Amino acid sequence: MTRKELSPTERTRLGRHRERGKDERADLYAVLDAGVVCHLGMVRDGSPLVLPTCYGRDGDTLYVHGSVAARNLVAAGTGLEVCVTITHLDGLVLARSVFDHSMNYRSAVILGTARQVTDPDEVLTGLRVITEQVVPGRWEDGGARLPTRKELAATTVLAVALDEASVKVRDAPPGEDEENDVEHWAGVLPVRTVIGEPVPAPDLAPGIPVPAHVQKRASAPL
Amino acid sequence: MTRKELSPTERTRLGRHRERGKDERADLYAVLDAGVVCHLGMVRDGSPLVLPTCYGRDGDTLYVHGSVAARNLVAAGTGLEVCVTITHLDGLVLARSVFDHSMNYRSAVILGTARQVTDPDEVLTGLRVITEQVVPGRWEDGGARLPTRKELAATTVLAVALDEASVKVRDAPPGEDEENDVEHWAGVLPVRTVIGEPVPAPDLAPGIPVPAHVQKRASAPL
Repeated sequence: MTRKELSPTERTRLGRHRERGKDERADLYAVLDAGVVCHLGMVRDGSPLVLPTCYGRDGDTLYVHGSVAARNLVAAGTGLEVCVTITHLDGLVLARSVFDHSMNYRSAVILGTARQVTDPDEVLTGLRVITEQVVPGRWEDGGARLPTRKELAATTVLAVALDEASVKVRDAPPGEDEENDVEHWAGVLPVRTVIGEPVPAPDLAPGIPVPAHVQKRASAPL
Repeated sequence: MTRKELSPTERTRLGRHRERGKDERADLYAVLDAGVVCHLGMVRDGSPLVLPTCYGRDGDTLYVHGSVAARNLVAAGTGLEVCVTITHLDGLVLARSVFDHSMNYRSAVILGTARQVTDPDEVLTGLRVITEQVVPGRWEDGGARLPTRKELAATTVLAVALDEASVKVRDAPPGEDEENDVEHWAGVLPVRTVIGEPVPAPDLAPGIPVPAHVQKRASAPL
């Protein structure tokens, strides 16, 4: 059963700019589904460590490519407490006052205990949704050779339940109240992430055309 | 005195893909100077927390806009152990095998103890480099009204020494060795972050033109 709402916990209740909070589960999915790279936070020897990695989503389970976290996972034994944050920068918000400068963005912060996926079928599921997140169709359309058993064994996939999360969105002009300022320009510089035309590998066998799923990814915004 | 090299510590020595490591301080500066948003990691009640925020650099000091970390800073008392990670996604690396899929990216991971800046002059310095990082000239060219004393007091700026950091860069075609595969396409989908044309605030006073520093930011890549 998929719950519709994000129920805030003490940890995910927003401290600042609560008006930017979104509490529908669909808002969380929208932020996750629009990205490719997450920042995976963990505690190592008592200190924070944040590493970029890939992720994908299957229903209410987030799968994270976890090789970067592997040695910390082993140290943690059963599960590794993580914070997975996904941020999309949408605009530079230039106010009349430096103090009111801001960003337009969509972000999701997910808290939970990551477990290492060991069931081979679930490792496959995890890799599939991570691969499809990068380029939809890359797995489903047979765009790449699927992993061998040996490759699967060499891959670390983490699973995090999408139970505890917060979503924040800012999408607005400068929020200050200084209309009487006739000296300084204010507005937004929009920021977009775009995907360019595919660059074939130098050693690509001749006669292999760019697949439809790759061309489609190139012509859509990230 | 600015040291030229990044001396790895036990914590910043790379575990995986050491060939992607960069050990010049200039490499660290290049990654930092190319971005706008960092991911600030900290430990809160024993659990990791990663939040996106703005940053800027003054020599070997990283300044981070720290309101998001404020309550944790207070809890920490003197200084807050942080990990600041900056990631630029440059390409989706599509190999013939799912296993060899990767990303082209530039990333920096900075470890240290953040101190809250209290000296008013240094708060100004921090805000200046953060603002200039977002749009060069925004502060220096008088593009926005500078902070009042009251606004300064309401701003939390953290400082982190750029002492302990690692930099990783991948900028290459798929790294696999499957040239005999004549079935699957392989290559790179380049990813770029671009800034669009400025959108004036709806309540902008008439007759204020788009300043040169804003127009310049719009025509340059992020």
